[in-house]
Amino acid sequence: MRSAFRLPRHHSKKTGTPPGTLIYTGEKKVDKARISIMEYDSSEYSERVVEDFESCLPIKEKPTVTWLNVVGLSDIGMLERLGKEFGLHPLVLEDILNVHQRPKLEDFGDFVFIVLRMACHDGEAGELRMEQMSIILTEDCVITFQETEANVFDDIRKRIREPKGKMRRMGADYLAYALIDAIVDGYFIILDYLGQRTEALEMELVSDPVPETLHEIYRLKRDMIFLRRSVWPLREAISALDRGGSSLIREGTELYLRDLYDHTIRVIDAVESIRDVVTGMLDVYLSSVSNKMNEVMKVLTIIATIFIPLSFLAGVYGMNFEDMPELGWAHAYPVLLAAMAIVGIAMVVYFRMK
Amino acid sequence: MRSAFRLPRHHSKKTGTPPGTLIYTGEKKVDKARISIMEYDSSEYSERVVEDFESCLPIKEKPTVTWLNVVGLSDIGMLERLGKEFGLHPLVLEDILNVHQRPKLEDFGDFVFIVLRMACHDGEAGELRMEQMSIILTEDCVITFQETEANVFDDIRKRIREPKGKMRRMGADYLAYALIDAIVDGYFIILDYLGQRTEALEMELVSDPVPETLHEIYRLKRDMIFLRRSVWPLREAISALDRGGSSLIREGTELYLRDLYDHTIRVIDAVESIRDVVTGMLDVYLSSVSNKMNEVMKVLTIIATIFIPLSFLAGVYGMNFEDMPELGWAHAYPVLLAAMAIVGIAMVVYFRMK
Amino acid sequence: MRSAFRLPRHHSKKTGTPPGTLIYTGEKKVDKARISIMEYDSSEYSERVVEDFESCLPIKEKPTVTWLNVVGLSDIGMLERLGKEFGLHPLVLEDILNVHQRPKLEDFGDFVFIVLRMACHDGEAGELRMEQMSIILTEDCVITFQETEANVFDDIRKRIREPKGKMRRMGADYLAYALIDAIVDGYFIILDYLGQRTEALEMELVSDPVPETLHEIYRLKRDMIFLRRSVWPLREAISALDRGGSSLIREGTELYLRDLYDHTIRVIDAVESIRDVVTGMLDVYLSSVSNKMNEVMKVLTIIATIFIPLSFLAGVYGMNFEDMPELGWAHAYPVLLAAMAIVGIAMVVYFRMK
Amino acid sequence: MRSAFRLPRHHSKKTGTPPGTLIYTGEKKVDKARISIMEYDSSEYSERVVEDFESCLPIKEKPTVTWLNVVGLSDIGMLERLGKEFGLHPLVLEDILNVHQRPKLEDFGDFVFIVLRMACHDGEAGELRMEQMSIILTEDCVITFQETEANVFDDIRKRIREPKGKMRRMGADYLAYALIDAIVDGYFIILDYLGQRTEALEMELVSDPVPETLHEIYRLKRDMIFLRRSVWPLREAISALDRGGSSLIREGTELYLRDLYDHTIRVIDAVESIRDVVTGMLDVYLSSVSNKMNEVMKVLTIIATIFIPLSFLAGVYGMNFEDMPELGWAHAYPVLLAAMAIVGIAMVVYFRMK
Amino acid sequence: MRSAFRLPRHHSKKTGTPPGTLIYTGEKKVDKARISIMEYDSSEYSERVVEDFESCLPIKEKPTVTWLNVVGLSDIGMLERLGKEFGLHPLVLEDILNVHQRPKLEDFGDFVFIVLRMACHDGEAGELRMEQMSIILTEDCVITFQETEANVFDDIRKRIREPKGKMRRMGADYLAYALIDAIVDGYFIILDYLGQRTEALEMELVSDPVPETLHEIYRLKRDMIFLRRSVWPLREAISALDRGGSSLIREGTELYLRDLYDHTIRVIDAVESIRDVVTGMLDVYLSSVSNKMNEVMKVLTIIATIFIPLSFLAGVYGMNFEDMPELGWAHAYPVLLAAMAIVGIAMVVYFRMK
Repeated sequence: MRSAFRLPRHHSKKTGTPPGTLIYTGEKKVDKARISIMEYDSSEYSERVVEDFESCLPIKEKPTVTWLNVVGLSDIGMLERLGKEFGLHPLVLEDILNVHQRPKLEDFGDFVFIVLRMACHDGEAGELRMEQMSIILTEDCVITFQETEANVFDDIRKRIREPKGKMRRMGADYLAYALIDAIVDGYFIILDYLGQRTEALEMELVSDPVPETLHEIYRLKRDMIFLRRSVWPLREAISALDRGGSSLIREGTELYLRDLYDHTIRVIDAVESIRDVVTGMLDVYLSSVSNKMNEVMKVLTIIATIFIPLSFLAGVYGMNFEDMPELGWAHAYPVLLAAMAIVGIAMVVYFRMK
Repeated sequence: MRSAFRLPRHHSKKTGTPPGTLIYTGEKKVDKARISIMEYDSSEYSERVVEDFESCLPIKEKPTVTWLNVVGLSDIGMLERLGKEFGLHPLVLEDILNVHQRPKLEDFGDFVFIVLRMACHDGEAGELRMEQMSIILTEDCVITFQETEANVFDDIRKRIREPKGKMRRMGADYLAYALIDAIVDGYFIILDYLGQRTEALEMELVSDPVPETLHEIYRLKRDMIFLRRSVWPLREAISALDRGGSSLIREGTELYLRDLYDHTIRVIDAVESIRDVVTGMLDVYLSSVSNKMNEVMKVLTIIATIFIPLSFLAGVYGMNFEDMPELGWAHAYPVLLAAMAIVGIAMVVYFRMK
Repeated sequence: MRSAFRLPRHHSKKTGTPPGTLIYTGEKKVDKARISIMEYDSSEYSERVVEDFESCLPIKEKPTVTWLNVVGLSDIGMLERLGKEFGLHPLVLEDILNVHQRPKLEDFGDFVFIVLRMACHDGEAGELRMEQMSIILTEDCVITFQETEANVFDDIRKRIREPKGKMRRMGADYLAYALIDAIVDGYFIILDYLGQRTEALEMELVSDPVPETLHEIYRLKRDMIFLRRSVWPLREAISALDRGGSSLIREGTELYLRDLYDHTIRVIDAVESIRDVVTGMLDVYLSSVSNKMNEVMKVLTIIATIFIPLSFLAGVYGMNFEDMPELGWAHAYPVLLAAMAIVGIAMVVYFRMK
Repeated sequence: MRSAFRLPRHHSKKTGTPPGTLIYTGEKKVDKARISIMEYDSSEYSERVVEDFESCLPIKEKPTVTWLNVVGLSDIGMLERLGKEFGLHPLVLEDILNVHQRPKLEDFGDFVFIVLRMACHDGEAGELRMEQMSIILTEDCVITFQETEANVFDDIRKRIREPKGKMRRMGADYLAYALIDAIVDGYFIILDYLGQRTEALEMELVSDPVPETLHEIYRLKRDMIFLRRSVWPLREAISALDRGGSSLIREGTELYLRDLYDHTIRVIDAVESIRDVVTGMLDVYLSSVSNKMNEVMKVLTIIATIFIPLSFLAGVYGMNFEDMPELGWAHAYPVLLAAMAIVGIAMVVYFRMK
Repeated sequence: MRSAFRLPRHHSKKTGTPPGTLIYTGEKKVDKARISIMEYDSSEYSERVVEDFESCLPIKEKPTVTWLNVVGLSDIGMLERLGKEFGLHPLVLEDILNVHQRPKLEDFGDFVFIVLRMACHDGEAGELRMEQMSIILTEDCVITFQETEANVFDDIRKRIREPKGKMRRMGADYLAYALIDAIVDGYFIILDYLGQRTEALEMELVSDPVPETLHEIYRLKRDMIFLRRSVWPLREAISALDRGGSSLIREGTELYLRDLYDHTIRVIDAVESIRDVVTGMLDVYLSSVSNKMNEVMKVLTIIATIFIPLSFLAGVYGMNFEDMPELGWAHAYPVLLAAMAIVGIAMVVYFRMK
């Protein structure tokens, strides 16, 4: 699993176009948009997948809860028709298609528009990826928009299919809550992974820091910067939903929203903790490198300090002066060798003590 | 005593489950849940321990204050029955079992739910550990939930047993206050220990910084990051209790809550002080290492600067040119030796002056 | 494209003059001021360019929307006449001319005065430049002031010319919104460029940091400091417009202003992200340099540690003592060579292991 | 004068005791508590010192202002009697005895309780010390509690003794103000001392940074951390007194409290300024050490670069090959010496230029 | 122009004195206080200078605007008489004399008291200096207090003398505004100078950082710390004047105050920008020094790595063993020389490639 957070690539595709222009700014990943529709109330339940929006009209005949999950954002014509059907403002459609939004919540009175960033695994490369998820909540309908099918919603589908489940007894607001909760839960998985990566780096930092450790720390720090910018507005959005007093939120759901808000705070807490830890690691790395250099320098200094003076002595007695009386002295050579050995050993002892 | 703060391990066990699903996310430490019950008012007092929740029903027959202390969270069935008896919301039970909460307070009108993180010593390994303590305060009842028996409550039990003690004259709100106060007091013990560790490190930093000092500083800094994330929400929770105006808090207890809030502020103050001190230590360590390297380099430079030129001179007179007139000069050798000695001494003097 | 953000050059030209004194504090770039006028409503449309303000009077004969785009700020006489015609306060005219304002919005009741900083490319040198754009919004008129013609407005002109476009159906407030939106969009282009520069630097930092990398990081950091000081007040100004409740803002435009505010937040987010990334790069650079020095020192130490002792040995046997028995031993020379080789190889092996 | 700020030693003496338990947590410095009582109004004035609290009862017979200055906190019995006489809550008495409080103000309606930290010199060792000063202000009475006699109040006593002084005309609230003002003034003395210490360090940093400079900077930084934690809550407490609208504060005193608040802000300003300066010094120190190492390395490199190649040359002509034609050339030796000199001088010139 | 910002020297002269004691805490610079009086309305105008306060009584006979400019603060007697005449509170007089105030504004109902810090050049030494300027604004009178004559007011005097100037038509509040505006404008001059100093340092940092560069950066950083502490409270004071709703501020002046506030914000912006830039410079300096050391180390390592092995070889063939067959081989010497040259060149090539 590698990080794939990128520096912002803004909607330069869109610069200069009038507001409300519908251009999908993301990477096209599916060829054909697909809508999966689940309709349920406490007694009934139906599920179907269509590729053509018109074929599922009229959406609502019965007072059930309907969940339209739109996968694939490049079919702009279909989105326009869907927007007209639900009375969505062109700016909302623009935000759904412009997949570089910050998480936000906007209350339009008869519907609430929520943008989230979902953390998910790319199936093929095992890469980590952030994907925009837009949610429209109306009185009895939830519409979700995304480019690729996210498996985080599988559990929710299962819970809807269960005839006796709580989901079947609650309204569209509870469904929206459950979807957001699943996305927030997704952050915990990333954080677990990042936490493990951090602890592995800490081990490395203590035992044997190498230049690669530095690059890993840097990459982790960078990931935390981007994750942080993703989760703080998430908190704001969910807090707005919690306190917002939208008429679409029924009384029984409020407690669940408070719990959701709580989870978001914990996500932020974890992000900030890892960020603080990683920031400290950079300083420790620098100190560790200095420590190692210190060790290297000490070795060099000891070797040089011992042998350079001895070499000088040897050099002196290698001079070719005609009149060097010591050269002829008896035992001069072994005495000199002994003196050198003593000096050398004395210095080793001295350094060891220091 | 070693630090055992870990990077967040989130409720990945729980990801994908519907809200209100009861799964204990901590480490199972006791085999069987146990409930110790104390009932008292100013005249009467009783105490018993049960392993089976049903056996203690009905809880309340007399208008006394009741303290249910639940030790062991893995018996989910018992918790569900207890929750039903006291009318607790499934999300509250979920939070009690999911032992990675941040400290928080939630006012449900007829009961107040408080989550705290308690600092305690692990009996066997002498390790430092954070454990979640959940407290439910109702009109005349306090329920505490924890995985292992905490000895911080021993003093409170003693005070309840004293017939003339203040505790006996006050209500459940005062008992809840006393329990939280005992937990906050526990932080002071950790802080004393961390303060001592910090001062020991400061000594080491000044006298002889070694690589191990760096790792100690880093560990301490890391502990402070996690402790900090634990005490700031504690402040919020207690502040909410203090100002909250819950109808469960009687007038006489308010002053004690203000005092408790005061203690929390002092815990935060101490945490922040130690954190600031530790942050400064990292910079000093780096400077100290540089200082030491500087010393080492100076020794090397002095030795090299003195002996390398002298060795060169000796090398010159060791050359084998046929026509080197100096070699035959009278006293050339002692004069050269003297000159070398003078140059060497002059350089030593020069370096000493610098 | 090079950065041309400068440290503040304040209005020292103006120090000591009474308030309301009209002096253009920028660099004079066009010789003659020029006013281009667009008048339109849903049915009619006219466009003309004048160099003389009087020639375009009376401005308003019909209840159309009028856009006066003033290019060139050094013709102070004309600005005074224009100010008198529209009832602008002398301090407003002063702010228009003093082109070192922070972005701001001032609501004067019958007109709103907005100062923005526009990011644009200098045609000749390809340099990046910030230019002040002042906007006056009245009931049915928008006046824009700038020193040089900005091409960011070309798209808006096109949209006005379209007979069926939304622009033609909306009032002056929507025109003002569209102009500001075009300026905010201009920031995304700069940010894309800076993001690319940052990622290129990151590559360099990992593969081969050179001193030039350091200067690039520093320049980038500096740019972010100034960009940041430009976009934060922009947010304030647009937020004031959004919530301000100015009577000049019609109901249908409010939603667009909210969208504009959203864009500004995203600009700030991107600026802060790049700033955080760049800040981390400085630390990594320093560590990288230390790493490289470490490598260099290791090479030196290994070479010195291997050869200095060997040289000493060679020096010993180069001494000229008369009585050095080893010199005469059979095979002494090859044995010594072999011993030297063994010592040397042993040390290489030792260092490799370490 | 040395710094004696310590890392927090919390009330571990008290952990586990019920709230309101009276234990003096400080160091016992005086054997016997002593109460000095001053009673005055504009016409009368009396002063006495008692060791026994009962002997001064009844405190109030006349409508004068009374100042009870309690020196010595280990006589808990006396404090309890005093508390009962004045109707003080047990938690207030606890806070007076637990001398590790943060500065705070609590308004109990009929009395105001203020805790301050007073900076004072230890008479014997000349050491700097923080001591807790608790102040109770009632309608016509001020009680101050401290462990040792503080000489900061000497001036106030003098002003009370002056029959025509302003003090005699004002009430108990003005006396309380004067006492707090004297304590705040005490901070200015510490700050003057710390400011001088900082400037001396700056000199050292520029002229000749030694390892001791580093430790001094660190100690100063540490002192600022603790001083900072002392003065910020002081500001809060005084601000609460200023705006609090306690009925005990008469109208004429309000202006003085505003002035006092102003002084506190200046104390904070000075603390923050010194802190900012000291923080910058650490970075400069590290750079200075690097600079010095750079100098040392340059010397080593120059010496080595000049002499190592020359020594190599001398070594070459010291080889004992039988057939080395240069050795026999006429003037080979002086020519080589000249060449060596030229190379050496050329390198010196080259390095000087660089 | 050198910086002369000093660490705080507090009013230790005053410690222990009762509040309202009048002691001038600054340096005495003028021998005799001097009052210059300007009286004007739209038709009349008079100007005189007195050294004796009594001689200018009664101040007000006509409903003109009066500006009393008091230069010299050591004549305390005169200040007391002036204070009595205008009904100033002793604490206000104390603040005027205690010239280490932070900028502040106090509204006393019938007069407003403003303290500012004025940046000015010391005439003789060309040094930069902060001087306290106190301003009293009453209904029809402005009194300014300063130790030395500031030339920043010369322009205002000129504007008053002009019979048709705006100044003559406006009241005392506009005069006060104009005086403060002149002082704020003075900051822009300092900031221009500091901005130039910063850009010069940046050049130096890139081209050739020397230890003096470090000290310059440090001095600049220090200046920014103090300037910052001066301008933030300035903003507060002016904001209080702007929004304060003092009855002394007439309607026409409000717009000018808003403009003044705007200027203050720009001063703060510039101070913060320079501060951010300077902070980044310290890190770059450290990296630059490391870079340079890296260069030096590389030279040393290359020289040592090339010549130490070669010297060893020469040493080997300088040994005096009797039986060294190579010494007698034909062409052994030139072959060895060639081998040495090849090894040396190979290493140079190798290093160049790296």
